[in-house]
Order: sequence, then structure tokens, then C-alpha cells
Amino acid sequence: MPANFADRLIAATRLRKTPLVVGLDPRSERLPIKLRAEDPENLELLAQSFQKFSCEIIDIVAPLVPAVKPQAAFFEMLGPAGMTALASVVNHARSQGLLVIMDAKRGDIGSTAAAYAKAFLGHNSPWGCDALTINPYLGADTLDPFVDSAKKQGAGLFVLAKTSNPGSSMIQDLIVDGETVYVKVATLVQTLSLQTKGEGDYGCVGAVVGATYPEQLAELRSKMPNAILLIPGLGAQGGTAADVAAGFDDEGLGAVINSSRAIIFAYENPMYERLASNWQRAVEQATRDTIAQIAAETNAGRLSG
Amino acid sequence: MPANFADRLIAATRLRKTPLVVGLDPRSERLPIKLRAEDPENLELLAQSFQKFSCEIIDIVAPLVPAVKPQAAFFEMLGPAGMTALASVVNHARSQGLLVIMDAKRGDIGSTAAAYAKAFLGHNSPWGCDALTINPYLGADTLDPFVDSAKKQGAGLFVLAKTSNPGSSMIQDLIVDGETVYVKVATLVQTLSLQTKGEGDYGCVGAVVGATYPEQLAELRSKMPNAILLIPGLGAQGGTAADVAAGFDDEGLGAVINSSRAIIFAYENPMYERLASNWQRAVEQATRDTIAQIAAETNAGRLSG
Repeated sequence: MPANFADRLIAATRLRKTPLVVGLDPRSERLPIKLRAEDPENLELLAQSFQKFSCEIIDIVAPLVPAVKPQAAFFEMLGPAGMTALASVVNHARSQGLLVIMDAKRGDIGSTAAAYAKAFLGHNSPWGCDALTINPYLGADTLDPFVDSAKKQGAGLFVLAKTSNPGSSMIQDLIVDGETVYVKVATLVQTLSLQTKGEGDYGCVGAVVGATYPEQLAELRSKMPNAILLIPGLGAQGGTAADVAAGFDDEGLGAVINSSRAIIFAYENPMYERLASNWQRAVEQATRDTIAQIAAETNAGRLSG
Repeated sequence: MPANFADRLIAATRLRKTPLVVGLDPRSERLPIKLRAEDPENLELLAQSFQKFSCEIIDIVAPLVPAVKPQAAFFEMLGPAGMTALASVVNHARSQGLLVIMDAKRGDIGSTAAAYAKAFLGHNSPWGCDALTINPYLGADTLDPFVDSAKKQGAGLFVLAKTSNPGSSMIQDLIVDGETVYVKVATLVQTLSLQTKGEGDYGCVGAVVGATYPEQLAELRSKMPNAILLIPGLGAQGGTAADVAAGFDDEGLGAVINSSRAIIFAYENPMYERLASNWQRAVEQATRDTIAQIAAETNAGRLSG
């Protein structure tokens, strides 16, 4: 039986001394000029350029961070060719020693949920991922097939609790019996985390909590002491390193922080203008700078202490 | 600009005189023996058998029903080969004059939602579907990119409101200010339906409401007078034709009823034992029987009057 995902993620985080996860969100109009497809209407060519870009990012960040988070939507947007590219990107990331958190936000009922779990979870699955983001709207029974599969495969899950977008309040912030919906989801996640605990304090079922809601992050950290939080929204979405501080435990563990656009498109940032001619160096520098910011502003700094 | 999806779906429903949609949920262990892959561990072979099975189903049901609903999960479960098969299945369904409702339950924020919309919506999109199921947990702002794209592409959306599974109450039935979450979702869907109305009464944004909850179906019908309801759960999940009666308006429009396993695996049903040696005839007979049941028990019977 493969090791628990929480243990694997924590080991990788300790090894790289940072909880930073780099999001792989390729967009055709923002790729470095050299990598742009000659014909942006040609999905095969676009898929090739997405794959090349993502794999180059992986080569740059593999020595620096524990994991990458491919966003399925950007590959799905290219049809079957995009999905073939996505599989290659996942394989390449794993071959470089990175954990792969597939951001696909899947969710369905019964045997359909089981099919998604079988698709994504574990190194022996068709997509071969280490973890998957999932959506709880359909109810607790629809998470069970994912949890069963994750336990068997040594894989992880991140259940959407409080998402980073401005309108996430519509359902997530509704208050029932004095408790928000996102706290109800967190209570369920905490139960599942405890049931799936590895050798350390954390279980293989975690939660997604946006960096753009620091107060809710603190509340959710306390409601889910055994859940690893996946915190997106740093950088382009407006979250800062200080905003994510509440996500960590005393040892600087218990959370991973995702940044996508601010790192992978760093060459467009005036801050890295001196590196603009070498987009790979801009990506590397942005990764190092983000790691340093997180270390300076949060308990994650203790990982390198 | 392509015609509004609601108008197209209603025209197809009138033409075939039934609101039945056949769900394409291939499962390797239930395929007719002749179609099973020789090596069920070989994803390429499995994908080919899923494609062949789905396309044969399409050929059988195309003269009988207005639409099919492929379940993305079962194809995704086979990795990139499955996704290539899925694209072929969608193409084949459209070539046979069927509308294609992709059941993928996607949902994400901002530009990621826009990427999913671009992937699936409209005949010019990479997957070339007529409609897509989407998840509202992330909030109203995350539906907007889907709605914008659907309007432009003449495509449709079905927003999950009340799903058919036993545990759908967890979030969907929570009551806030005297109103359930599923009614709040319905109120939003109704607004979007009105904003996207075609030449008839219905808009291109509809909702998913499970056949297994007939009372909630009646309530939701009245809350969303301009939304087409996609009603799954007939057959294998326990919903009956009588259970879906409340979904229709006086003309027998306003709803489409999905049945998957009870039709596509009809050859396993003792009721069709006499046809067991000819699985295609069992599928055809189950389709005709389901159409007749819906016509007998609901206003949809008026379509053939």
C-alpha cells in the first residue's frame, strides 16, 4: 500500500523547505513569444505549446517546490489534444520528483464519483495524480467514493470549502443554525481527515480555502486541525503572503500555498523586466521570491530554520 | 448567430414527440460480451469498446429521442484515450441529428470557468457540445462566463439545483431565511433563464433536478417557469415516469428526462430476456417503453397528441 498522501506532502514540503505549489495554467495569449503556436486555431499545435511551456516550468521549479497544480480546464479547452498534453505534463512532473495536485474540481454521485476517483487518484490511475480538488455541493455521500479511493491509492483530496472568488459568499457564506455552509463543509472535512490520518497529524482529505479571505482562513484552520489546506489566490488574485499566515500550524505545516499566474507569467511583470528576455529566469526568480515572502511572513519560515 | 439552445431543444423534442434523453454511461463490466475489450487493463482497447458501444446506442436511439447525455467521468476514467473516444462519440451523435448534453458538472472561478465554457459549449468548440451541466457551489459570478459563452454559441447550461442522490440534502436542503439552498439556486437560474430567453418561453439556462425527489421537483418547476429542467434518476436510480410529471408545463414541454443504465444495459434486464441475445433490440425496446411510460404518465403525452 502506498504511503499516505499527507505524509508524502509533508515530507516533500520539509525537503524543499517551502509550502509553495506552482499552478500550471497555460494560456495561449500569455505564453512567451517563442513558445506560441504558429496557428492559434490549431488545437494540436496549441496543445504542444502548452505541454512544452508546462514542462519547462516543471524543470525550473522541481528543485524548489514540493508540488505543482495543473488546472484541468486550460487543457480541456483544447479538446482531446489538450488532454493528451495534460497526461504528458503530469508524467513529466512526477518524473521530476514533484507531487501533482490536479485542480479539476470534480464532483458527481455514486458510481460516477467513483469513476472520477479511478481516473485521477494515485500513480497507477490513468492520469496518475497525487491529489485532486473536489466539489461538495452534491453532499457527503458523493465524497465517499473519492475518500475510499484516496486511502487505497495513497492519494489526497482537497474539498472546496471557501473559494477565492468575490462571489463565493452566495452559497458558501449562508448561515444555518449559526454556522456558515463553509464551516459545515469544514466539519465534514475534519471528520474525514481524522479517518484518513497518516503517521503525522494530518489526513489525506484536506480543503481548499482562498487566500483572499484571511479571516475565514483563520476560522477554517481552527475547525480543521487535521486537514491540510490548499490555499489558492496568492499573487494575481490579490492574496498576499501575510494573508495566508493563519493557514499554518506552529511548525509551519498544514497548508500549501498555490501561486499560478504571478509565477508562470513572471516575465510579463515589470518587476522582472531585467529578465524579460529570458522568461525561464523570470519564472525561477519569481518562484524564489514567493518562497522567500512566504517564509518571511508565515510560520513556514520555520521549515528552513 | 446560432439559434437559442432552448428553441433547438424544444424543436427536437416536438419532432421526436418525447422529452426522453438517453444517458451514455459505458461501464466495462456491463458491456455486451461481444463489445468487451479483450484486455480490460488496456485503456486504448477499453476506449475503443466504449466508443463502439456508445455509437451503436446512438444509431439505435437517434430516430427516437431528441438528445443524448454522455457522462464525462466514464470516459475520463480511461485517460487521454477515453477523451479521444468521447470526442468521437459527441461527433457521431451530432452527425445523427442528436443534441448532445455533456454531463461533466464543471465549475470554477473567473477565467477558468471561461476555459471550461470554451471547451464544451457550441458546435465550434473543441468538444462541440450543445449543452453542459455545471455546479453552482462557487457562486453566481462563476456561472457568468458559462452564460456569456452559451448565449454566443447557441448552447445550453443545466445548473445543479437538487441532485438525485440520497445525500443531496447536506448542502442543497439547508434552510436560510425560510428558503432552501436549492431554491436559492433556482431563483438565480430563473433570472438567468429570463435573460437568455429564446423565441419561446424558455431560456438557455436550465437546471438539474433529480427524479427521485418529486415534491422538490414540483416546487422547483414553479420557481423556475422559464427554465428547462434536466431530470436524471429515472430507472436505475428509482425514479418513475409518474415521479417526473411535475416537471412539465401544460404543453408537455419545459423538461427533459434522462435515463441511462435502464436503457443502455436493457439486455441485462429480465424484462427483455427474450431480446437478450440481441442487445441492440433490447436497447431499442427499452427506449420505446420508456418513451411510452413518460407519455402515459405526464403531460409529455400531449407532444404526440
